[in-house]
Amino acid sequence: MLHKKIAIQTEGSLPDASLTLYLWDYSEEIPIRKRPLILILPGGGYHFLSDRESEPIALRFMAMGFHTAILRYSVAPARFPVSLKETALAVSYLYEHADEYQIDSDSIFVMGFSAGGHLAASYGAYWNSAFLSQESGCRTETLRPAGLLLCYPVISSDPAIRHEGSIRELLGDDWQDEELLRKVSIDKQVHPQMPPAFLWNTMQDDTVPPENSLVLVQAYMKQGIPIEYHLYEKGGHGLSLASALTDNMQHQCIEESCQNWIYLAEKWLNRSECKFLT
Amino acid sequence: MLHKKIAIQTEGSLPDASLTLYLWDYSEEIPIRKRPLILILPGGGYHFLSDRESEPIALRFMAMGFHTAILRYSVAPARFPVSLKETALAVSYLYEHADEYQIDSDSIFVMGFSAGGHLAASYGAYWNSAFLSQESGCRTETLRPAGLLLCYPVISSDPAIRHEGSIRELLGDDWQDEELLRKVSIDKQVHPQMPPAFLWNTMQDDTVPPENSLVLVQAYMKQGIPIEYHLYEKGGHGLSLASALTDNMQHQCIEESCQNWIYLAEKWLNRSECKFLT
Amino acid sequence: MLHKKIAIQTEGSLPDASLTLYLWDYSEEIPIRKRPLILILPGGGYHFLSDRESEPIALRFMAMGFHTAILRYSVAPARFPVSLKETALAVSYLYEHADEYQIDSDSIFVMGFSAGGHLAASYGAYWNSAFLSQESGCRTETLRPAGLLLCYPVISSDPAIRHEGSIRELLGDDWQDEELLRKVSIDKQVHPQMPPAFLWNTMQDDTVPPENSLVLVQAYMKQGIPIEYHLYEKGGHGLSLASALTDNMQHQCIEESCQNWIYLAEKWLNRSECKFLT
Amino acid sequence: MLHKKIAIQTEGSLPDASLTLYLWDYSEEIPIRKRPLILILPGGGYHFLSDRESEPIALRFMAMGFHTAILRYSVAPARFPVSLKETALAVSYLYEHADEYQIDSDSIFVMGFSAGGHLAASYGAYWNSAFLSQESGCRTETLRPAGLLLCYPVISSDPAIRHEGSIRELLGDDWQDEELLRKVSIDKQVHPQMPPAFLWNTMQDDTVPPENSLVLVQAYMKQGIPIEYHLYEKGGHGLSLASALTDNMQHQCIEESCQNWIYLAEKWLNRSECKFLT
Repeated sequence: MLHKKIAIQTEGSLPDASLTLYLWDYSEEIPIRKRPLILILPGGGYHFLSDRESEPIALRFMAMGFHTAILRYSVAPARFPVSLKETALAVSYLYEHADEYQIDSDSIFVMGFSAGGHLAASYGAYWNSAFLSQESGCRTETLRPAGLLLCYPVISSDPAIRHEGSIRELLGDDWQDEELLRKVSIDKQVHPQMPPAFLWNTMQDDTVPPENSLVLVQAYMKQGIPIEYHLYEKGGHGLSLASALTDNMQHQCIEESCQNWIYLAEKWLNRSECKFLT
Repeated sequence: MLHKKIAIQTEGSLPDASLTLYLWDYSEEIPIRKRPLILILPGGGYHFLSDRESEPIALRFMAMGFHTAILRYSVAPARFPVSLKETALAVSYLYEHADEYQIDSDSIFVMGFSAGGHLAASYGAYWNSAFLSQESGCRTETLRPAGLLLCYPVISSDPAIRHEGSIRELLGDDWQDEELLRKVSIDKQVHPQMPPAFLWNTMQDDTVPPENSLVLVQAYMKQGIPIEYHLYEKGGHGLSLASALTDNMQHQCIEESCQNWIYLAEKWLNRSECKFLT
Repeated sequence: MLHKKIAIQTEGSLPDASLTLYLWDYSEEIPIRKRPLILILPGGGYHFLSDRESEPIALRFMAMGFHTAILRYSVAPARFPVSLKETALAVSYLYEHADEYQIDSDSIFVMGFSAGGHLAASYGAYWNSAFLSQESGCRTETLRPAGLLLCYPVISSDPAIRHEGSIRELLGDDWQDEELLRKVSIDKQVHPQMPPAFLWNTMQDDTVPPENSLVLVQAYMKQGIPIEYHLYEKGGHGLSLASALTDNMQHQCIEESCQNWIYLAEKWLNRSECKFLT
Repeated sequence: MLHKKIAIQTEGSLPDASLTLYLWDYSEEIPIRKRPLILILPGGGYHFLSDRESEPIALRFMAMGFHTAILRYSVAPARFPVSLKETALAVSYLYEHADEYQIDSDSIFVMGFSAGGHLAASYGAYWNSAFLSQESGCRTETLRPAGLLLCYPVISSDPAIRHEGSIRELLGDDWQDEELLRKVSIDKQVHPQMPPAFLWNTMQDDTVPPENSLVLVQAYMKQGIPIEYHLYEKGGHGLSLASALTDNMQHQCIEESCQNWIYLAEKWLNRSECKFLT
């Protein structure tokens, strides 16, 4: 495999923003050529990046046959849209190196957890905007995501349901600016070119209200964009794989009933649009 | 096992309304005593009852260790609330015979498909109403459901998302009566004594709009009642088990990506509130 | 479903020997016509018949789409070959009623547990013998089994590995007769017309030595007859489903690592020779 | 993760013999400290090393939470016991670096495929021999394996069932030497200090006769050493994961019924002796 770290830097980036690659070697013995790639955006409320949502996830999807990559994007004090631009730079880098790395550039998925889910959803909304192309300096053709995987994401800036911490860290002093708040409320930004999405969270999440996912599902349905959504009854926030592999130090993150989300995600990824394995 | 058919008749019932029991025998060799029971309400748009959502479902849950029963409720020309009263009679019958049949009367779940899902959800909303107790003649203490399992249910009478066929068959000539329409729009009837629910449907359902499930999830969340919801991207209406066992004659009902719903339902049933097997 | 009990009586039978049917109803809505059938022979050391290996098994396979039937064969003081003749009568009955019951008569499987596994294996060895045809009065064409499923079976009468209790109950006073001992040591009776077999047991079985299975696998391999064999490390004798559904009163029969045997059996049944569901 | 290649060289080694590490990073956020390790020995008839049995396996077990490592041992013209010594050097290296790499040195498993399975089984037989300690220069205390995972292994040198190609490549000109043949027939070398084993193969394997596995199971049983064995009916030789991820260029290596072996192996690894995840 190719395991390698690339610096991702744009105006406003923190010094350690980076993209870590987990790429399958090509083998003459195996008939798989180009592989889809999953770009992983860990969570952490836009103030840190969680290990629990980084390598264990990359390795799990890699074992399914995908190339994976982890974007360690800039968090506070970096502000919107720095991490969004970094996501664009990462996707564009993968597009530009698709031949070299045997990536199927039509199958680059963006996956995020919690605040990273907000970033992934934001990217799904803005990937084809003039705004992002200008800010990042990337050509829109190199930015198209094939789909989004959103795990207990922050979505809305509506005071009734938002995760205030993430919104404040993302926007800083401007966090009450109406226009900015609208811009980062992804349920308000859904448009027909957003990619299909796979989404899951838990009813008992008392950090990011579960309504965040619900408003995104509604917006997708209104636009008729394909979405798959799994709302589990049990389980708190930040479960990652929900198994011992990603338990936290307080032992709060094993939730047997949620552990199947990754199999559901695998099935969703392998449906007709991306059946590289069948 | 005890396999037996009981007539269920109330004012307005069709002559063949009945309850079919699939009950485990008690064995001195096995330490299970009382078992939970799942009462199954097949779909069919309130104009027929589908075999595809009857015995294959009863047998599948029975194999998991549950007692099951199928209520073949009255459809058109029988009107609201005949089938609701029949559901009450069925549940009450099971309560009253709990000792004889070794049923755990605290664990009677009501499950419905499509229009049967509407009936199950209606029952969840009205089980403790004076209205239903009076109409059915059953004491409310004998009517409490432990939970609902709703498969691609009809929920709303809102013209924007309703399944008009089901609503018309249910209400007959009165189908435009505002008060009645409100009464059968279960998203409008959610209250704190409704039981927890497990719900699934598909985005591509072009018979019952998927928003029917979504509005119920929202109403549950607003009340803080536990709900688990699985929205699959692929698959049309009426999938039942989504496998060859319940395919239809046009071979439209095998959808591999949905086949896990029954395992998710099993996990939900076996969570802490009903862990008779662990 | 059709749930019905048939008396099975031949010379030497106990008065309550019987065949209990668990047959799917035919439905005009579902494209499945004829179904394979699994005939279940419970264990009990040829001195009783275990409930734990009867209805829970019948229901589980029925839920997969199979017709099932339980043969409550005669045990001691009935002796060899009474139960073997009863098995022939049961299979023949199912053949003769295949049209009436919508049974695919080319797909009648015989399944047995422990001593019932010995009976199933014996039937697999003797189904086409002149001996069994004469003794039972059934035509050989009506006796052909499509396959065997053997769960922790008694196989051998070799003193080094045999389960003496089963052999004694089966043979009675003649239990040291060399010719009889050879006749009931099924590893010695394997011939090219024996049907394919699926077999499982556990290394820690301290009732029926695991070598019983091993000698059968060797004999099958020598003849080139297809066999699938799963030897689990953990788990004692008589696990049945190895889950809470079939635990015993001493709570010794839950063994999580063995619970997958039934999925492996389902896959084996649904392979090319019997793919009624695909 | 730490992904790194170490040269493994002893007298007679090919120049590119090496050990490639796939080690989890330690994270302060996750309560797992030391992890078990699986050392993988690819197959290839002792004349090459298959990619199909290398990285896809390492990544799959890594995703389950194990450290993994691939030993690219020397094949022909290197002869016995060069690859055996290399295996000892690899295990000893891992023991000596257990603290640095956070390896649980009591849980180093050795896994092999086909001829690699022969090497793994040989290592299991000889790990505590004076012979291996002397030849490799490693202290026996640093060589103890916690268990073996053997996938369609070459085991026996008995002309009736052996895979002649592997034996000839392993022994070279001496391949008819009786003493050597006995030494490499692992079924003849089983002793009480051999570690527990997990073993699988297929009945239809027409390269390495399935009896190779059977004789090892018998030898283990005779010694009372724990063994788990899965013999599938379908599937040819060299299936690796039996899925598209490890298909070969002739598209002969997808066998759905065998794909569960890795889940069975995971369960076996996580049983009481190695339950780091529970």
